[in-house]
Amino acid sequence: MEKVTTDICIVGAGPVGLFAVFEAGLLKMRCHVVDALAAVGGQLTEIYPKKPIYDIPGFPEVLAGDLVKNLQQQIAPFHPTFTLGERVEHLDKQEDGSFIVKTVAGTEIACKVVVIAGGLGSFEPRKPAIENLEGYEGKGVTYMVRDPEEFRDKRVVLAGGGDSALDWTIYLADLCKELTLVHRGTTFRGAPESAEKVLHLAEEGRINLVLKSNVTEVHGEEQLEGVTIEANNEANQVEADYFIPLFGLVPKLGPLENWGLELEKNAIVVNTFDYSTNIPGIFAIGDINTYPGKLKLILCGFHEAALMAQSAYNIIYPDKKFVLKYTTVNGIQELQ
Amino acid sequence: MEKVTTDICIVGAGPVGLFAVFEAGLLKMRCHVVDALAAVGGQLTEIYPKKPIYDIPGFPEVLAGDLVKNLQQQIAPFHPTFTLGERVEHLDKQEDGSFIVKTVAGTEIACKVVVIAGGLGSFEPRKPAIENLEGYEGKGVTYMVRDPEEFRDKRVVLAGGGDSALDWTIYLADLCKELTLVHRGTTFRGAPESAEKVLHLAEEGRINLVLKSNVTEVHGEEQLEGVTIEANNEANQVEADYFIPLFGLVPKLGPLENWGLELEKNAIVVNTFDYSTNIPGIFAIGDINTYPGKLKLILCGFHEAALMAQSAYNIIYPDKKFVLKYTTVNGIQELQ
Ligand SMILES: Cc1cc2nc3c(=O)[nH]c(=O)nc-3n(C[C@H](O)[C@H](O)[C@H](O)COP(=O)(O)OP(=O)(O)OC[C@H]3O[C@@H](n4cnc5c(N)ncnc54)[C@H](O)[C@@H]3O)c2cc1C
Ligand SMILES: Cc1cc2nc3c(=O)[nH]c(=O)nc-3n(C[C@H](O)[C@H](O)[C@H](O)COP(=O)(O)OP(=O)(O)OC[C@H]3O[C@@H](n4cnc5c(N)ncnc54)[C@H](O)[C@@H]3O)c2cc1C
Repeated sequence: MEKVTTDICIVGAGPVGLFAVFEAGLLKMRCHVVDALAAVGGQLTEIYPKKPIYDIPGFPEVLAGDLVKNLQQQIAPFHPTFTLGERVEHLDKQEDGSFIVKTVAGTEIACKVVVIAGGLGSFEPRKPAIENLEGYEGKGVTYMVRDPEEFRDKRVVLAGGGDSALDWTIYLADLCKELTLVHRGTTFRGAPESAEKVLHLAEEGRINLVLKSNVTEVHGEEQLEGVTIEANNEANQVEADYFIPLFGLVPKLGPLENWGLELEKNAIVVNTFDYSTNIPGIFAIGDINTYPGKLKLILCGFHEAALMAQSAYNIIYPDKKFVLKYTTVNGIQELQ
Repeated sequence: MEKVTTDICIVGAGPVGLFAVFEAGLLKMRCHVVDALAAVGGQLTEIYPKKPIYDIPGFPEVLAGDLVKNLQQQIAPFHPTFTLGERVEHLDKQEDGSFIVKTVAGTEIACKVVVIAGGLGSFEPRKPAIENLEGYEGKGVTYMVRDPEEFRDKRVVLAGGGDSALDWTIYLADLCKELTLVHRGTTFRGAPESAEKVLHLAEEGRINLVLKSNVTEVHGEEQLEGVTIEANNEANQVEADYFIPLFGLVPKLGPLENWGLELEKNAIVVNTFDYSTNIPGIFAIGDINTYPGKLKLILCGFHEAALMAQSAYNIIYPDKKFVLKYTTVNGIQELQ
C-alpha cells in the first residue's frame, strides 16, 4: 500500500489534469496525478489518439496522441508523480483542512488541495446485459486483455465489433486452443483492414466467427465453463474457459458522486473565479465541471487550470502573495 | 474610404483577436479584423517576437512570432479580411442593433457583432516631455520612420537607446546629410551587435553620437530648424530638419474609452458567461477585459474567444440553435 505526500492531488490524467501540473508547477506547487486508466491522456488516449484536433490554439492540426505527448514534455520540468491504473474512491478531509485521497488499490495520497480533472468520469467497461455475468468476473469473465498469455491454449469467446474486438481476435487467434468471435452485426465498426484480417482468419478456419449473434447466457459451476450464443432465436451452447465482452468503455462519475460535492447533470458545479467547488480546497476543472456558459472543450480546461492554480497557491502558501510573472520573462524554474 | 460588411468586426489583431476568427469561423461567422499596427500579432509581434513563451498549452516552448504565424495558418480556412495600420476611433450603433465601426482613416465596417480584443490598447509612440513638441509634429518632428527616403540629404536628430534607435541610425547613417543620435545613457538596451555598429559609425565620423544627453528643446519658425541637446547642465543647440524621438510604443485604451462601456482600472468589465460587455452585441476578450479572477494570459483569451463565439452566433443566426461539434469529428469547413 503506497503512501504519497504532495501539495496537490490531481484526479484524472486527461489533457486538463496534465496541464494543471504545469500551472501548479509555475507556482512551485508539486502534484501527484491519479488515473483509473493505465495511460495518461484521458479521452484523447482512450478514444481518439490517432484523430486530428483542429481547435487547439496555435495548432492548425494536431493528433490527439501528439498533444498528450507534448503536454507530458511540457510538464516534465515539474517532475509530477503518477499512480496509474487505480481509480480514486475515497476522500477524507483532515482536521487541519488537508485531505487524504484513497484509490481502490489502497494507495493513499496526503495533500493540501484536490483538483478533480475527471473528465466524463472514470472509464469502465460497458457490460452486456447477461444474467449473473458479474458473478463470473475473475472466474472466466473479464472485460480487458491485460496479459494475453493468460489465454494460451484456452477456449476463449470474444464478443464485440469494434477495434478492440478485432485487434484481440487477430492477436489471440493462434495463441488460444479455440477462439470464437461473436458479433451482433455483419459489418464491423473497427478499421477495415482489421475486419478483413478477421474474415480471412475465419475462412482459414483459424477462428470461429459467429455473426448476427449475441452471447445471452454464461454457465459453469465454480468457474466459467461455457456460454450460450443466440442467433434468430436459435441458441447454441459452446464450451469456453474465458468470455471477454469488448463493448468499449463508458465513463462513470462513480465514487466522486459521494463526496458531498454540488452536482448538476452529472457534473460538478464550480465558481468561475477559480473553478472551486462547494468544498474548500477542492477544485474541479475540464469536462467534469459545469458553470454558466461551460463548453466541454480542451482549451477551456486549460484556462480553468490556470485560474485554479492561483487559488490553490493561496491555500498552499497562505503567507505569500501571488504575483503573475510571464513565462517569457521568468522562464521555467524546474522543481527538484 | 473603404467600406466593409461582415458578421463580426474584431478590434485588435493580437493572438486573441486572431483566435476569435477561428472560433467564429467554426460557427460559420465571417470576421474583419482591424489593428492600429501594420502587422498582426499584438504584443507578441510588437514587443517580444523572438522570445520563447512556455505556457501555451501543448507547446513546451514556442517563439512568440511563431505562435502568431501558427494562428494565422489556423484561421486561414476562414478567410478573414484585415484593415491594418488604422486605429478604430468610432462606433455607431444602428437602429437595427447592428454597428458601424470607423477607423481614423475613414474605413467603415458594418457588422452585427463587435469583438474588442484590443489588448492593452492601441500602441502609440512614447513622447518625450519637451515643450511644444506636438506643435512640430508633421513639421519635422515624427515618431516613426515610414519612408527613409524622406530623410535623404537632411540633417536628422534621432533620440533613444533601444533597438529601433540603433537600427535606424545604422540605416540612415549614409543617407542623411548629417545624422546625430542622442542617448541618455552610455550603454544601449538594443542588440549588442547593433550597438557595436553604431559605436563604429561614430568612430569613423559617419554619425554624431551624443551620450549622457537629452534633447530638451525644439526650435523653428514654421518648420523645425534645430533642437537643444543637454548634458550635465550644458546645453548645445544643433541645426536639424528632422527630430525623431524613438522611445518605444505605449498602449493607450484611447478611443474605446468613449464608447459607453463599463470600465474598471483601464479594462472593460465583462460577464464570464460569454465575455459580453454592458452594451449588447459588443464583447471584450483578452487582455482588455476584466472580471473576477482575470489573468492577463494568452491561454485565457483563447477560452474567452470560444465562449464569446457561442453568444455571437445567437445574435448573427437568431433562428438557429447552436450545437457543439468537436473539430475532430466534423473537421474544418472552410468559409468561401
Ligand atoms: C471523439 C471525440 C472527439 C473530440 N474532439 C474534440 C476537439 O476537437 N476539441 C476539443 O476541444 N475537445 C474534443 N473532445 C473533447 C475532449 O476530449 C475533452 O474535452 C477532454 O478530453 C477533457 O479533458 P479532461 O482532462 O477534462 O478529461 P478526460 O480527457 O475525460 O480525462 C479524465 C480522466 O480522469 C480519469 N478519472 C475519472 N474519474 C476518476 C477516478 N475516480 N479515479 C481515477 N481516475 C479518474 C479518467 O479515467 C480519465 O482518464 C472530443 C471528445 C471525443 C470523445
Ligand atoms: C514581455 C512580455 C512577455 C509576455 N509573456 C507572456 C507569456 O509568457 N505568456 C502569456 O500568456 N502571456 C504573456 N504576455 C502577455 C501576452 O502578450 C498578452 O496576454 C497577449 O498579447 C494578449 O493578447 P490580446 O490579443 O488580448 O492583446 P494584444 O496582444 O495586446 O493585441 C491587441 C491589439 O489590439 C490593437 N488595438 C488596440 N486598440 C485598438 C484600436 N482602437 N484600434 C485598432 N487596434 C487596436 C493593438 O494595436 C494590438 O495590436 C507577455 C507580455 C509581454 C509584454
